[in-house]
Amino acid sequence: MSENQCEIAFLPAGKATQVPPGTTVLEAARRAGVYITSICGGEGTCGKCRVIVHRGEVETKPTAHLTPEEVEEGYVLACQAQVRSDLVVEVPLESRWEGRALLADIDVIRFGQIAPPRPGTRPYRDDPLAKKAALRLSPPTLADNLSDLDRLWREVDRHFDRPLKQMDLETLQRLPHLLRENDWQVTVTLGQRCCSVMEVLDLEPGDTSHRSYGAAVDVGTTTLVVHLVDLTTGQTVGSRAKYNSQIRYGEDVISRIIHATQEKEGLTELQSCVVRDLNQLLRALTEERGLSPRDVTYVVCAGNTTMMHLLLGLEVAHIRREPYIPTACCPPVIRAAEVGLRIHERGLLRCLPGVAAYVGADITAGILASGLHQSSELALYFDIGTNGEVALGNADWLVCCSASAGPAFEGGEMKSGMRAAEGAIEKVSIGPDGRVLYQVIGNGKPRGICGSGLIDCVAELVRTHYVDRAGQFNREQLGPRLREEEYELEFVLAPAEESATGQDVVVTQSDLDVFIRSKGAVYTAAESLISRLGCEFSEVERVYIAGGFGNYLDIRNAITIGLMPDLPLEKFTFIGNASLAGAKMCLLSQEALEETERIAAKMTYFELSTDPKFMNDFVSSLFLPHTDLEKFPSVARQMG
Amino acid sequence: MSENQCEIAFLPAGKATQVPPGTTVLEAARRAGVYITSICGGEGTCGKCRVIVHRGEVETKPTAHLTPEEVEEGYVLACQAQVRSDLVVEVPLESRWEGRALLADIDVIRFGQIAPPRPGTRPYRDDPLAKKAALRLSPPTLADNLSDLDRLWREVDRHFDRPLKQMDLETLQRLPHLLRENDWQVTVTLGQRCCSVMEVLDLEPGDTSHRSYGAAVDVGTTTLVVHLVDLTTGQTVGSRAKYNSQIRYGEDVISRIIHATQEKEGLTELQSCVVRDLNQLLRALTEERGLSPRDVTYVVCAGNTTMMHLLLGLEVAHIRREPYIPTACCPPVIRAAEVGLRIHERGLLRCLPGVAAYVGADITAGILASGLHQSSELALYFDIGTNGEVALGNADWLVCCSASAGPAFEGGEMKSGMRAAEGAIEKVSIGPDGRVLYQVIGNGKPRGICGSGLIDCVAELVRTHYVDRAGQFNREQLGPRLREEEYELEFVLAPAEESATGQDVVVTQSDLDVFIRSKGAVYTAAESLISRLGCEFSEVERVYIAGGFGNYLDIRNAITIGLMPDLPLEKFTFIGNASLAGAKMCLLSQEALEETERIAAKMTYFELSTDPKFMNDFVSSLFLPHTDLEKFPSVARQMG
Repeated sequence: MSENQCEIAFLPAGKATQVPPGTTVLEAARRAGVYITSICGGEGTCGKCRVIVHRGEVETKPTAHLTPEEVEEGYVLACQAQVRSDLVVEVPLESRWEGRALLADIDVIRFGQIAPPRPGTRPYRDDPLAKKAALRLSPPTLADNLSDLDRLWREVDRHFDRPLKQMDLETLQRLPHLLRENDWQVTVTLGQRCCSVMEVLDLEPGDTSHRSYGAAVDVGTTTLVVHLVDLTTGQTVGSRAKYNSQIRYGEDVISRIIHATQEKEGLTELQSCVVRDLNQLLRALTEERGLSPRDVTYVVCAGNTTMMHLLLGLEVAHIRREPYIPTACCPPVIRAAEVGLRIHERGLLRCLPGVAAYVGADITAGILASGLHQSSELALYFDIGTNGEVALGNADWLVCCSASAGPAFEGGEMKSGMRAAEGAIEKVSIGPDGRVLYQVIGNGKPRGICGSGLIDCVAELVRTHYVDRAGQFNREQLGPRLREEEYELEFVLAPAEESATGQDVVVTQSDLDVFIRSKGAVYTAAESLISRLGCEFSEVERVYIAGGFGNYLDIRNAITIGLMPDLPLEKFTFIGNASLAGAKMCLLSQEALEETERIAAKMTYFELSTDPKFMNDFVSSLFLPHTDLEKFPSVARQMG
Repeated sequence: MSENQCEIAFLPAGKATQVPPGTTVLEAARRAGVYITSICGGEGTCGKCRVIVHRGEVETKPTAHLTPEEVEEGYVLACQAQVRSDLVVEVPLESRWEGRALLADIDVIRFGQIAPPRPGTRPYRDDPLAKKAALRLSPPTLADNLSDLDRLWREVDRHFDRPLKQMDLETLQRLPHLLRENDWQVTVTLGQRCCSVMEVLDLEPGDTSHRSYGAAVDVGTTTLVVHLVDLTTGQTVGSRAKYNSQIRYGEDVISRIIHATQEKEGLTELQSCVVRDLNQLLRALTEERGLSPRDVTYVVCAGNTTMMHLLLGLEVAHIRREPYIPTACCPPVIRAAEVGLRIHERGLLRCLPGVAAYVGADITAGILASGLHQSSELALYFDIGTNGEVALGNADWLVCCSASAGPAFEGGEMKSGMRAAEGAIEKVSIGPDGRVLYQVIGNGKPRGICGSGLIDCVAELVRTHYVDRAGQFNREQLGPRLREEEYELEFVLAPAEESATGQDVVVTQSDLDVFIRSKGAVYTAAESLISRLGCEFSEVERVYIAGGFGNYLDIRNAITIGLMPDLPLEKFTFIGNASLAGAKMCLLSQEALEETERIAAKMTYFELSTDPKFMNDFVSSLFLPHTDLEKFPSVARQMG
């Protein structure tokens, strides 16, 4: 410990930093570049940032998140532990983010998959937002003495029918040399700027028209996914995913907004995180195909409104406070370099249009991909992540709302919760003999339980009467699986000896409470849209379920617990990462982009958080499946 | 003289520099920031860069431009004199440019005046290319929860009807703070970018809508003129003119092109000159009205194609060589800061569209101002400067061409020639008693003769038989006025004792030859257009004469010498600096700008330099007024 600085070393990362006494271990970890899971953003309430202090002194407060044994072993919550001396700190696997910088293939598949276009949806005209054309200009003569620029435009007009074209001064300055040194044969790259203006992004000697790439990006709160797309064929030639390293500043959008607004450089830090992440993905994708990042000339991003703001460095403070106002729902197209994205130096970045603070471009892009807006069928659209967004409509109208589902479906705020990553229990069933069967992502030992696993688990617990309709554990079932801990009852899914962490994987009464509020919020959001439009759930002809979560959802169980409305299973369609699919469609078609803009413009947003009827309905939904069993006739029949 | 460096001091400027031996005195002067007149660009052929070496040694070649007495006095041509030691060099008044950085008021009037709109021309809609609006936004509520950007656009749409709007990232980033810190009252500045897109140039707190200025600029080869325009009233609130300091690199566009293409930093040097000049004018104009250069948000420039290229830093090499190809006739709108213009940091610069290498934006803007293109009258349009441009047409069609008039009309290549500046003889008549009467700009002693004076002078010399129809001095008239010098005959307009320089102001036989070629080129250009279109001069209903030169032209004399076609005097209309007038009209009206674009698009350009008929007709025109007297019936009658 040098004067007023403590040396903090982190294991197993082997990284260290110096901080003044009083700094939290979480903050020290950030400075050292060590990622520690932190859902609550440092409030001490989520209990996820568990670390072990092997040497040195910290000052900390008592917490219910640690057992006396754990405290004995040196466990502290990193956000609550203030540095008092030099430290050696171990970050256990369950609290660790580093090393997961690039998701394993399994996660890429889970997060990055795009459903094929649904049969019956109208395709959009092949017309990418960036395109190249190899031009052979006729050399000037006295009889054909157009200026170099007009000569270029004349040839461009033979390839493309867009009337509005623009060239920057620097490119114009090199135009005469380029044309004459290359025998009047050049390749032009045009990119769509605002208002359908096609801007010259590059002029290259000869014919390079075969090297033309764009990136479609899903900027998720948790996961970033990039598809590298060959703009000449429309094919994804590579895809990669990565956790959003903003996670170190909090797991949900609210924690991020708090960080962005309360810390001096907060917004810049969050922007740097996502930009660095995307650069890492783009570099990996281009390198593996022997391309240069310069070959990528256009990036289309979808994501929720907060994520779009953080990527662009826009003020997010007012998203969080009533009346929930974003800086921009339809941000201008900018040069990717303006935010630090390393693609072509003049390449463009377009964030797709969203609707409101809590219904973002991920939903408009997703609806585009679903084709919902093209059909006369009345359809519901669910995107359930940290926030649950619900839309309802058809070709004539669209309404939407957002439900604060909380992070339960992404494993947050749960004692053994985790994301749908390797080691997560993703499917659960309880056999007639009481045996608990589960399926683990990656087929190894379980480390926790993710959203889809939790839905299965709760449905099975209800079916087997471990849990009653009010969502309370049934004391009559106390035994080896259902046991009473210090504060509450908990159900043991996988005992310590079966798990990868040496700790039990459990579902507690608190977990159930949180979970029921989450599922209730999503269901009630959908119910609100239905009732505001004077419809009935029975009139809904199609239900689209988007998101990595959706693909692994057991619909019957989701109905059993009252997350999804009680409709015939054949009406449900999983559409994968529809946000990413929509971004890719826009990248490949100006027409699809315009359609997305129309979707955003025509979608009516209902703010639920201030609606008293919503609050009443929400309270009624805090049952399994619901206070009003008539709303779930198939579940009622099942229950006999 | 330090090792390998000579100290060169210039009088009376008091400036000095160090150069290696072998450098020319002209180059040393450039480096010292001392301007010396140099028409030929350093070839030693114009004899204008006379300086006196008071101390030190130079190495120089014999030249016919200096008399033995002058050589005795220390006169050398600065471009031919190579430095051999430290020097003290005097730049005599007639070779000096410095001190004339800002033109005197008289010159501003001459170059900057804009004729009022001609009766009968259709006015354009008041719709400036940059405009401000003070906006009062309604604060957001749950029921009206548009994003900040959409809220702004909604209010902007109430003020302006342009659908295409754009905002840059940086402005968007500060939007939320700006709105909330200023009680939702801000002033937006919109500027027209390419393709009619209106871009947000600024957002300011409160109401600053009364401070909205633009600049209309005539970028002349010789003279730069700026009008500072109040965009809220459309009035010019100040105007200033200045010699184009590119003159130090040569007086005509060809010398400038040679400098730009043959010197390593030539293009950059020329661009810096004009940008520095314009900044000086803009600063003076804003300072005198207590404004900041930031209050100027839009600059519209007219000028010939080469001048537009040099301002934008575009390659000019191909303008000079067959087939005479500019880089761009219709350059994109750029940020003024991109070329170094100091106005608002996001202010825009628009160079108006031209037609070809030698028919530039000065002509299209001039035609706009003349209203020629709106009328059914068949009209001729002359703009006579270093280059003479001629257009012919009416509301249905337009043709144009360019005549290499040479610098004769601007006083170049003449022994006593000078620009229309203080001390120039601008009007001449020879009385019946043989007395020579002249009028001097500024009413002081004469220093030389300018274009309008020369036209008068030649016409009077013909009338009084000093000169015959072939343009040769008449030896029979030898006497005190017409005398024989070493090489040729010359006519003394003002003897040394009357002049400001102590030298005779004369017109030599060589001057006559140059002058006749110049006037012949202009006339033949007009004749070519007339004959290509199958017309006769007699069908021309109106002749517009544009340019500072034009205003002081004696039309009768111009017909007498065969410069202008022999038409009734009432058909001639002087329209002042029509290029500047057109630039101002475009600055004030999007509609006028679009009209200018249409004029440029529909104007057919004829290249004369490669037309054998033109060469024949040109030779026929090398008489006074013409070989074919039938073409000048009124002159024939006068001559009896």
